[in-house]
Amino acid sequence: MYVIAQFTVIPIGTSTSLSGYVAACERVLAATTGINYEMHANGTNLEGEWEAVMDAIKRCHDTLHGMGVPRLSTNVTLGTRTDRPQRMVEKLSSVRAKLADQS
Amino acid sequence: MYVIAQFTVIPIGTSTSLSGYVAACERVLAATTGINYEMHANGTNLEGEWEAVMDAIKRCHDTLHGMGVPRLSTNVTLGTRTDRPQRMVEKLSSVRAKLADQS
Amino acid sequence: MYVIAQFTVIPIGTSTSLSGYVAACERVLAATTGINYEMHANGTNLEGEWEAVMDAIKRCHDTLHGMGVPRLSTNVTLGTRTDRPQRMVEKLSSVRAKLADQS
Amino acid sequence: MYVIAQFTVIPIGTSTSLSGYVAACERVLAATTGINYEMHANGTNLEGEWEAVMDAIKRCHDTLHGMGVPRLSTNVTLGTRTDRPQRMVEKLSSVRAKLADQS
Repeated sequence: MYVIAQFTVIPIGTSTSLSGYVAACERVLAATTGINYEMHANGTNLEGEWEAVMDAIKRCHDTLHGMGVPRLSTNVTLGTRTDRPQRMVEKLSSVRAKLADQS
Repeated sequence: MYVIAQFTVIPIGTSTSLSGYVAACERVLAATTGINYEMHANGTNLEGEWEAVMDAIKRCHDTLHGMGVPRLSTNVTLGTRTDRPQRMVEKLSSVRAKLADQS
Repeated sequence: MYVIAQFTVIPIGTSTSLSGYVAACERVLAATTGINYEMHANGTNLEGEWEAVMDAIKRCHDTLHGMGVPRLSTNVTLGTRTDRPQRMVEKLSSVRAKLADQS
Repeated sequence: MYVIAQFTVIPIGTSTSLSGYVAACERVLAATTGINYEMHANGTNLEGEWEAVMDAIKRCHDTLHGMGVPRLSTNVTLGTRTDRPQRMVEKLSSVRAKLADQS
């Protein structure tokens, strides 16, 4: 099952500076085969087979706990569809085409 | 890795009546060993080992797609901690104790 | 516009013990008129007019920052519908009726 | 109170093609003063004063219901902080600087 996902990992019990943890998580994603991902200002979009996506998120938890983060809360959105295949890049281009049509 | 999670599955491309799909998902959870779960008004709380929790959510997607739902968007929150073990029931009782202390 | 919502407030830059903050937020809700709310293991369900619900969540942020929390991340789910009125209690009873039918 | 937010609006009871609704919502944001926003593959990041951000999201609900969408579920993440001011663009640049340091 292919999934287009988004996730945001929030470290709890650390300082308010989270960018080092986000960077560590990005390196986990960079080392993961079979997924496509892109960071944005409030999280990271990623897509791939369900197991690969979930495994990548789990390794982010493992990595951050290994860095000493005592508690994590991660919000994940998982989109699956059976009507037709879809990739992340199409979602944006489809909206942008509609915006261009009506401007 | 033990996780306390919450998830809400939203069927897209169906009618506005979603309770039949939520019920189907609850039956998936009831048939899953190794997790503890409880439905609430806007989703379902569940806890267990990471793989068991994720597998249960995946089977909800499989089941709903199998019922003809063409597209699903699921929001999941995943809480893990290494400072001490915790179960869902303690989270509520801890807050309630504090509310009672100060009332 | 009536909304059935759920929210989870996550303090960042504090200790891992969050129940005191959740309790403070529950007291904010208890002091809010025009909403109905119920805490669960991973957040709080609430319903009412859009402005009342949003104002309650904002006052939670105000209150927790006032307690010294330097950073907050809150996840909110907002459900609105125009096809028919609905209350939280009906969402659960509708699912439970379907579960009972098929058991 | 300044907030860095993210939101994803999910129409329920429509077809599976959602890009027209996302485009309508983007036009609402384009017509809103006092916010900064950027669409991504799974939602839209936006920042501004709490009331302006919340009002923009509410007008998305109004607009989509006005287009005939009978039911909406919107997931919003709201980040506030009192330790220092922050803008969305800094969040990304801070992570990217850390990734560059260690590559």
